[in-house]
Formats: sequence, structure tokens, C-alpha cells
Amino acid sequence: MSILVLGTVALDTVKTPYGKRIKMLGGSAAHFSMAARLFDCVHLVAIVGRDFPPRYIDFLRAKGIILDSLIRSGGKTFQWAGEYRGDLNTALTLSTELGVLMTFRPTVSEGERDIKNIFLANIDPELQEHLLSHMHSPGLVALDSMNYWINNKPKQLLRLLRKVDIYVANDEEARVLSGESNLMRAAKALRGRGAKMVLIKKGEHGVLFYSDKFILSLPAYPTEKVIDPTGAGDTFAGGFMGYLARVKKVSAATVKKALAYGTIAASFNVEGFGMEKTSRLTLATLNRRLTKFRKAVVF
Amino acid sequence: MSILVLGTVALDTVKTPYGKRIKMLGGSAAHFSMAARLFDCVHLVAIVGRDFPPRYIDFLRAKGIILDSLIRSGGKTFQWAGEYRGDLNTALTLSTELGVLMTFRPTVSEGERDIKNIFLANIDPELQEHLLSHMHSPGLVALDSMNYWINNKPKQLLRLLRKVDIYVANDEEARVLSGESNLMRAAKALRGRGAKMVLIKKGEHGVLFYSDKFILSLPAYPTEKVIDPTGAGDTFAGGFMGYLARVKKVSAATVKKALAYGTIAASFNVEGFGMEKTSRLTLATLNRRLTKFRKAVVF
Repeated sequence: MSILVLGTVALDTVKTPYGKRIKMLGGSAAHFSMAARLFDCVHLVAIVGRDFPPRYIDFLRAKGIILDSLIRSGGKTFQWAGEYRGDLNTALTLSTELGVLMTFRPTVSEGERDIKNIFLANIDPELQEHLLSHMHSPGLVALDSMNYWINNKPKQLLRLLRKVDIYVANDEEARVLSGESNLMRAAKALRGRGAKMVLIKKGEHGVLFYSDKFILSLPAYPTEKVIDPTGAGDTFAGGFMGYLARVKKVSAATVKKALAYGTIAASFNVEGFGMEKTSRLTLATLNRRLTKFRKAVVF
Repeated sequence: MSILVLGTVALDTVKTPYGKRIKMLGGSAAHFSMAARLFDCVHLVAIVGRDFPPRYIDFLRAKGIILDSLIRSGGKTFQWAGEYRGDLNTALTLSTELGVLMTFRPTVSEGERDIKNIFLANIDPELQEHLLSHMHSPGLVALDSMNYWINNKPKQLLRLLRKVDIYVANDEEARVLSGESNLMRAAKALRGRGAKMVLIKKGEHGVLFYSDKFILSLPAYPTEKVIDPTGAGDTFAGGFMGYLARVKKVSAATVKKALAYGTIAASFNVEGFGMEKTSRLTLATLNRRLTKFRKAVVF
């Protein structure tokens, strides 16, 4: 089985107390892919501009990520610039330049339409719905979004919610979209709005997973080396979906392990700028930390 | 083995979106005892005033809590009034009347001085140190405090830190006392200041436990019924210390299970006002929820 991810490939400029990086490879689909590739073959659907460095294309390809549906268009690549201060929990967005994203119309090759595992990473919900409508037989579909779309295209997002298996949100997004401050209630409310399962990412506080059959909760991996949290959520999703795609089964046991893999993948992501750490990751390294994590939380 | 707890017994007036209670039985030592009694014999060291309702004395005694060192003095019982709004994560203190706490000088009976398990619940650190100095052979000593003492008696608190096994703090307190925003670093720094082990309570986000030998992390029990969180931290500590006192051993395995018992005890506490839920709790009920919790977090 393969995984198809729709999202952004971006040039990120990030400043944290540990340094600054200019126009690093970033974006939701790129971060997702870097973790998911450890488990399965990943097809990336996104758009970049003429200014996108060819070395980043080579880099993604060298990691085994399939770029058949990565469009290279005239115009500028999507750019994000942000800064983290203090405890690095909140990003201060300095600038966002949509560039080629403005004209993006995702297309997938005929062969890719048969892929069953689909991750709709954060991007305009209309593009997410457009892509999903072109897939032949979606098996496991997960959806991520952000406050911008919750505020600006809530109808489209809620319509899409009914078509996906797992809605992935951070705590703030879950609260805003559901109107509930308690996260368990927020998860239930989002279930009521149509998502079969709800995964709430709480950053340094771990994750909460809600479905009718089981509720799961995991803390984050305890780390003191937070260098740059950009992409942690997408990296989490990559580890999570990657494992589920590999085991081809959604049960309390597999979802638990998938959440743990996502947690561990994200813990590596935050320990370096951009994909510095996740791009060097192997499944063996991931498994070693998973064993440590299991010791820390199993009682 | 028994447990001795020094702290407050208070009359709490609490308002939450779910209602209001006037002059309920509360206080750090009372909440702690209500959970710890499920595991071991608890001796409560505190002071109340002439206005303290005799029915509360009967109530505590009926729960098996030993009140030989509960002083009844002239003056008014310590009173706290607070309100919780929105997501109930932060208490807004409306008034604090120290009353008899101002003149409190804890004493313990000769027999109680041999108790090995000691919990110094939140109260003036000088009183905590005074009590500890009178104990014959402390075995496992845990210390809780609050921002008020961190800000007003930091020297006394830091001196006491070197004499205890476990320093229990919430995330904000750990950050303020250590000067570190990352919680793992905060825990390490507090270890460096003398506490052998550090337990950081993160409220709805669970707990982090740090020692030289092992690091543990647990999420909170996922609940949507948060009625009144007053006393959740002390209830947590009661379940935690209670279990450790009962198994008479501090290892990664026993601390993990103790953290889980603390988590579960606290989850009952927040589901009702004051001790409505914890006072009716049995070990069997606690164990049933522990099994559910284990299913939710073990992978």
C-alpha cells in the first residue's frame, strides 16, 4: 500500500533562540512525507515555483518520496517566515507569501488515484475536497487544517469533515471549530459533525484520540532539546499515518502504536531545524526511542 | 506503615459554571487524606478554628483519618473563596482568610513521630521544616508548595528542597522556582537544587516525573466532566503517596503505578464539588478506572 499526501511544499525562514535558517525546505506535505516514508511509499501532491531549489527536489527524491504530482509552476514558491520565543510553544508568523499556492489545482496521475491511504495536509479545504473527489477508492482518509480555514471557510471544512475518517487538529483548532473548551467534549462534538475519529494534538502535552469505540491519550516524549518545532504536527501525522498504512488495520492497538510512532517522529523533528533530524531518521532509530518511550509511559 | 500529612484544613467557597458551594470542607491536607486513606492509615496534622463544623470532624474520622494532631484553636478556620470560568483550568481567588493559620505551630504525638511516609502539603515552608525536624526517621518525604511561598520565602523553600525525596509542583511553580521554561530542564534544575525526585503536575495535561534513574510521563485521564478542580493536585498527591506507602518501594515500576493512581484519584476529584466524589471512593472503583486508563495509554 502507498500513502498519498496533499499539502504544501514551502521555503521556511525560521528564527528560534537557537539560531536562524533562511528558506529551508518546509511545508505540511514535505514534513509529513519525511516521517511517513519510514513506513511506506509516499506520493507527494503539491506545487512549487520556479525559484524552488533543484537540490530540494533531489533531496526529497533521494528519500524515496514520489514526486510525480509535484507541480513546478511559474511564480514564487510558498514562503513562510516565523519566530519562536521563550518556551517555543507558539510561533509568531512574520510573513506568509502564498505565491504559486494561489493558482494551485492539484492533479494526480491515473495510477495514484488508486491509493487508499490519503492525508489531506493543511491547505485550502476546497483543494482538499477537489483532490479527494478524484480518488478512486479511498480507504483511510485523514484531514488536517488550520485556524485560517476554520475562520474563513468553515462550511467547506465541515462538509469535508463528513467525508474523512480521521480529523487531525491541534487543541486550539479543535476548540474553535467545535465551540467546546474541554477537549473531550470538543472531540465528541467534532465526531458529531461527521469525522469518524478525531485526533487532537496538544503539542508538548501529547495527544488525545477519540472514536466511538476507544479513547486514547498519550503524553509527548519528554525532551529538553526543543530547537525548532516547525512541522512537528505534520511529522506526527506522517508517523501516525505511515504506521497505519503499513499495518493496514485500524484498531485500538494499532492506533495506539501509531500515536506512539507519531509522537516519537515529532520528538525528533523538534530537535533540529526543519528536517535536519527527520531526514536522517531510520526506522531502527525510531524504534529505539519508541522502546524508551514505552518504558516511560506504560505502567 | 502509615502516612503523615501536614497542611491545611479549610472552608472553601467555590463557584464554577456548574454551581456554587459555600464553606465546603477543603484544604490541602484534607484533599490529600481523602485519596491516601484508600491505601494506608493517614494521620492529619493541621489546625482549624472554633467555627469549624463538628460534622466535618465526624466526616473525616468516619473516613478513617486519624485526627490526633488536628488542633482546634480559638479564632476562625482558614477560608478560601474562588471562582473558575471557561475551561476551568485557572482559579480566580476571590478571598483568602488565614485565620488560625497565622498562629499555627504543628505538633505531632510521640507515636506519630515514627511515621516514615511524610507529605508536606502546601503551607508555610517554615512550618513544613519545623514539622520535618520533629520526625524521628523520615523514610519517604514529599513536599508541595505554591507560588506564594516561591515568591515570598524562596530561601526557606530551597533549603527544604535538599531535605526531601520528592518535590511536587505544578508546571507554573516548577518554571518559576527553576527559572526554566522547558519542563524537562525545570525538573533537572530542581533536581540540581537538591530534591532527589521531581514530580511536575500539568493539570489536564498529566504529569512528568524526573529522577536520575528514570523519567516518566503520563497524560491526565480523559474526562469531560470537570465540575470543580479544587484540590485535584492534593488528591493526586494522596493517591501517589498512598500507593508508594503501601508498596514500600520506590522504583520505576512502583512510581509509574503511583502516578497512575494519583491521576485516577484526581480524575474523580474534578468530577464533583470538593470531596463529593473522592469521599465515596473505594479502592475497587479506583482500580476499575485504572484498568480503563491503562487501556487508553499503554501501547
